[in-house]
Amino acid sequence: MTDKTEIAAMESYFQRLWPIMRSITGHGVRQSHDILSELVPFERFEVPTGTKCFDWIVPKEWVCREAYVIAPGGRRILDIRENTLHLLNYSIPFRGRMTLAELDKHLFSLPEIPDAIPYKTSYYSPRWGFCLSHQMREGLQDGIYEVVVDTDHIDGSLTISQAILPGETADEVLISTYTCHPSMANNELSGPLVSAFLYRRLALLPRRRLTYRFVFLPETIGSITFLSMFGTHLLEKLVAGFVVSCVGDARPFTYMKSRRGDTIADRAAQVVLTKRTDNLFHLLDFDPNGSDERQYCSPGFNLPVGVIARALYGEFREYHTSLDNRDFISFEAMSNSVDVCFEICHTIDRNLTYCRTMPFCEPQLGRRGLYESVGGVQVTEERAKTLLWLLNLADGEHDLIRMAVRSKMPFDLFHELAETCVKAGLLKSVNKSL
Amino acid sequence: MTDKTEIAAMESYFQRLWPIMRSITGHGVRQSHDILSELVPFERFEVPTGTKCFDWIVPKEWVCREAYVIAPGGRRILDIRENTLHLLNYSIPFRGRMTLAELDKHLFSLPEIPDAIPYKTSYYSPRWGFCLSHQMREGLQDGIYEVVVDTDHIDGSLTISQAILPGETADEVLISTYTCHPSMANNELSGPLVSAFLYRRLALLPRRRLTYRFVFLPETIGSITFLSMFGTHLLEKLVAGFVVSCVGDARPFTYMKSRRGDTIADRAAQVVLTKRTDNLFHLLDFDPNGSDERQYCSPGFNLPVGVIARALYGEFREYHTSLDNRDFISFEAMSNSVDVCFEICHTIDRNLTYCRTMPFCEPQLGRRGLYESVGGVQVTEERAKTLLWLLNLADGEHDLIRMAVRSKMPFDLFHELAETCVKAGLLKSVNKSL
Amino acid sequence: MTDKTEIAAMESYFQRLWPIMRSITGHGVRQSHDILSELVPFERFEVPTGTKCFDWIVPKEWVCREAYVIAPGGRRILDIRENTLHLLNYSIPFRGRMTLAELDKHLFSLPEIPDAIPYKTSYYSPRWGFCLSHQMREGLQDGIYEVVVDTDHIDGSLTISQAILPGETADEVLISTYTCHPSMANNELSGPLVSAFLYRRLALLPRRRLTYRFVFLPETIGSITFLSMFGTHLLEKLVAGFVVSCVGDARPFTYMKSRRGDTIADRAAQVVLTKRTDNLFHLLDFDPNGSDERQYCSPGFNLPVGVIARALYGEFREYHTSLDNRDFISFEAMSNSVDVCFEICHTIDRNLTYCRTMPFCEPQLGRRGLYESVGGVQVTEERAKTLLWLLNLADGEHDLIRMAVRSKMPFDLFHELAETCVKAGLLKSVNKSL
Repeated sequence: MTDKTEIAAMESYFQRLWPIMRSITGHGVRQSHDILSELVPFERFEVPTGTKCFDWIVPKEWVCREAYVIAPGGRRILDIRENTLHLLNYSIPFRGRMTLAELDKHLFSLPEIPDAIPYKTSYYSPRWGFCLSHQMREGLQDGIYEVVVDTDHIDGSLTISQAILPGETADEVLISTYTCHPSMANNELSGPLVSAFLYRRLALLPRRRLTYRFVFLPETIGSITFLSMFGTHLLEKLVAGFVVSCVGDARPFTYMKSRRGDTIADRAAQVVLTKRTDNLFHLLDFDPNGSDERQYCSPGFNLPVGVIARALYGEFREYHTSLDNRDFISFEAMSNSVDVCFEICHTIDRNLTYCRTMPFCEPQLGRRGLYESVGGVQVTEERAKTLLWLLNLADGEHDLIRMAVRSKMPFDLFHELAETCVKAGLLKSVNKSL
Repeated sequence: MTDKTEIAAMESYFQRLWPIMRSITGHGVRQSHDILSELVPFERFEVPTGTKCFDWIVPKEWVCREAYVIAPGGRRILDIRENTLHLLNYSIPFRGRMTLAELDKHLFSLPEIPDAIPYKTSYYSPRWGFCLSHQMREGLQDGIYEVVVDTDHIDGSLTISQAILPGETADEVLISTYTCHPSMANNELSGPLVSAFLYRRLALLPRRRLTYRFVFLPETIGSITFLSMFGTHLLEKLVAGFVVSCVGDARPFTYMKSRRGDTIADRAAQVVLTKRTDNLFHLLDFDPNGSDERQYCSPGFNLPVGVIARALYGEFREYHTSLDNRDFISFEAMSNSVDVCFEICHTIDRNLTYCRTMPFCEPQLGRRGLYESVGGVQVTEERAKTLLWLLNLADGEHDLIRMAVRSKMPFDLFHELAETCVKAGLLKSVNKSL
Repeated sequence: MTDKTEIAAMESYFQRLWPIMRSITGHGVRQSHDILSELVPFERFEVPTGTKCFDWIVPKEWVCREAYVIAPGGRRILDIRENTLHLLNYSIPFRGRMTLAELDKHLFSLPEIPDAIPYKTSYYSPRWGFCLSHQMREGLQDGIYEVVVDTDHIDGSLTISQAILPGETADEVLISTYTCHPSMANNELSGPLVSAFLYRRLALLPRRRLTYRFVFLPETIGSITFLSMFGTHLLEKLVAGFVVSCVGDARPFTYMKSRRGDTIADRAAQVVLTKRTDNLFHLLDFDPNGSDERQYCSPGFNLPVGVIARALYGEFREYHTSLDNRDFISFEAMSNSVDVCFEICHTIDRNLTYCRTMPFCEPQLGRRGLYESVGGVQVTEERAKTLLWLLNLADGEHDLIRMAVRSKMPFDLFHELAETCVKAGLLKSVNKSL
């Protein structure tokens, strides 16, 4: 389905979501989730301000009506209608006149990337501020500036949207993505868009063994809130999970392992990426300096959750600036990210463990039409080799992913042959998590 | 004993065995085993056609009286008396006249090696055919050909020959080799010849701790039949085993590990080959696309059986063709293969585990005459170093092979020093399989 | 404290210790320990000749009054007052006149290093002899030589000095060094000097969690005797130990792991040396051909004891010759060796294991002032990253050294942050040896 329709649809949703002023809470988030709910049938959770979630408290909801500065010449600058990054995200309200020197204390720019507006937030320390390119900052004239920050922090709620694709078993795969950054492309919209289109592809599967839980939430406080609601359930049911983030650029994929490092999530991602990229992807060990996997992999949960990305957050120069925009990403690449995520999920879904019904010696394959009937030739075919690997490793200790890793033969072929062998009475599936 | 007598004897047996038409069953196999029984006192098992062995049934015995084709000019071609490979092995009987076009459907040749006659079989699909060089096939004239395939498939038996060299314990080492291919040198006669001469060398040992079981059988169906008879016993008693195959050429050795990968068989083969070849040998992980190790290492048995070879089956161009002939092999190399196999077996035989009688600190070696009496010199000697390694690692957890691997000191020296230390009362042997 | 005072003090003690005729027992050892006791408050053990220690017996005490040879011209040569190495150490007494040919049977020299006097001993075989440079030996004139070896072997005792620095717990770190070689610099005096000054630095610590046991003893027989007295105690209490030897030259450090290979001693040494040397140090696996670690790591004890050295014994050309003298070593390097030993001990002392008090998700660090309050910036700081690693790995399964190894963040920072987090109520220390 990596087709032009999907690519065009992604671009269209991107354009609608781009200009919205998002933050960890508030109207922008809800507006964004409303749009995404056209793609994914969300269940919406509104968690009230003040709710205690482990060590955290759901913060006030941010209302942002308008924000700009009137320069000495009367020109309106730093208007969030021009670029949502201009306002220090979660700013407290302010109205007033001041000199450039006074204003400057509230300005943020990046001397090392002078044409980029930085993205800055102040969630837990009440202040206001504006972000601008260093070029623009250098050009500001002396004089009196009028500042308007028409915001509010009210008792409201934090928004989490969830959608569940039920499968034959209650064992779950989690897809977690965040929707709390304003107008940025790779490190904001790519995650929710790839997740939403992944949902649609999985929904089309005629059969799912596993249940898929998709969550769209603000980073950190959102995953903490979510875990306070569903963490116990996930501890019991989660087989694999992925934080999907920064998947919009055309660079090589990155997979960061879960804290445990050898979960089914980790092995599935590696086996799929090795095959699809000819081993040209970045494989990283877990590092607790990242996104929501920090919470999923906190020591009390230690869930099997890794990160699927391309250029990882912080690894690209455009990160957290206005340069992370539509020019930085590619919708073809984004659709390819959906392909990879889908194949990882589909691999996990089919990752069963098998036992031979009669484990002594090889079965007589010729008699069952499972083997070439003219012998004496070197068994070169991938299919025949994979079949022998399958029959040899079907000992209840190797799931199909482990077989693919050990033999270097394709997972899909193992799965197909396993189904054939089950029908032929040679294998039976074992209920066992490895 | 790697002497000219052995080499000459090997060559003489090779010449007698070469022209025989062997297959998985039948007269040629028995004739071959009769010849080999001059070297090894075989116990012969004749397993009747129709006997059920796990998922398999012992097939009919093949009778092959003659097979040839009369070409249009009256010349007899493709006669098995000229080369046993000419007949598709296990062919059904046929007599008749036909055009070249009709005959051609029954011909097999290798365009990529035009001067080689391929070796082809059809055990489980009834058909007849002839194999020839592609050069010859291209030169066949139009006209009427007369085909004679005077064969039969009768109720008979499958032949397995076994010889046991008893040792002090019932723990066993298995040597398995196959005798089911017609006139080929490396991938047929080298295995039985090396195994037979290995038997003779082991038989000369004044003392054997372990019992050695040698089996000569047809590939696949033979090892399956053998396992149906002795598999349960081997599960209990087998310490190490080796499939000996393709050991006739002068190329570097190959060792393919057992499925378990770290058995005594695997460690002994590695320690011996590392020393004898200066680490220039191929070490392969288990792959279930090979010879009889597929059955020995099937999940229900999972026996400690590896493969000793030089150029592995399928890794040399001459494999399964008429080019795998006497010119391809070397009797000196074959005798050297006996050396290696003997040393591997002898290493396993002496691979005991030891404990210090008094494990605290080093014993006073000088007093016992076990150490140089003028101290103060750097202890450089291999002998002194090995002695300290032995006394340090004699903790009941390291067998002598593990000591040799960890210390990089020679196994033989460990064994000699261990015996000395037992006599000196410093060590005692521990009954323990590691 | 790596200051000029320490360096000057080391040199001054070196000069006093240098000329003393030491051996495994006797007056020279006691004289040396008397001098070192100015630095370390020794408890002295005198173990009587004849005492049984495991397989060994404490030998007679060696008395050495004078030893020299009168050459044919009347010149006194090979006098131990000129160089203590001239006498075969532990020589039996002898007085007599003989030809050069007869004398030559008692001479030791090194043709491959003709200007060096070798160091030779004969502890367990009664003989006398002299050591000299090969150059000198080649120049000896024919004639009658008068030999005086005024020594004695008397019932006396073997000297071991010990000092204990008590800590909050009875768990121990052992520092073991030897004092049995006559005038050599690196392979004798560097070990006791570094150990003595290490003692002084550890004594200055305001707080020690662990107890430190320092032992100064003759090599081999000394550690065996010591283990016969304290081995059982060490089996119960020893957390980590180090043989300190050959630490006087300015070459790269060497760490040889304990026999177990992954003890706290091994991990602490590696984490400290990796950091301090930018990974430019030699890391060796245990080898039982060394110094007293042979006894500590004998199979019955198998204690967590490694070796801290620079150029390891036997790895430098000057080893066990008169060239291992003051020119070969550097007091700056020796003081740097104290630095490294101190940091290794101090790392072990602070190597606690922690658990999160509330292990679910991350704690809210901002609220506690533990985190930067302006978010939205890439978390680049070492401090912030280390804090997240600490909170993530504080699961009772990672001690601080394991955290430092896994994260590649500094141990010291982990320790500082752990104390901060304990005060903030986020972590608690777990009583657990890992």
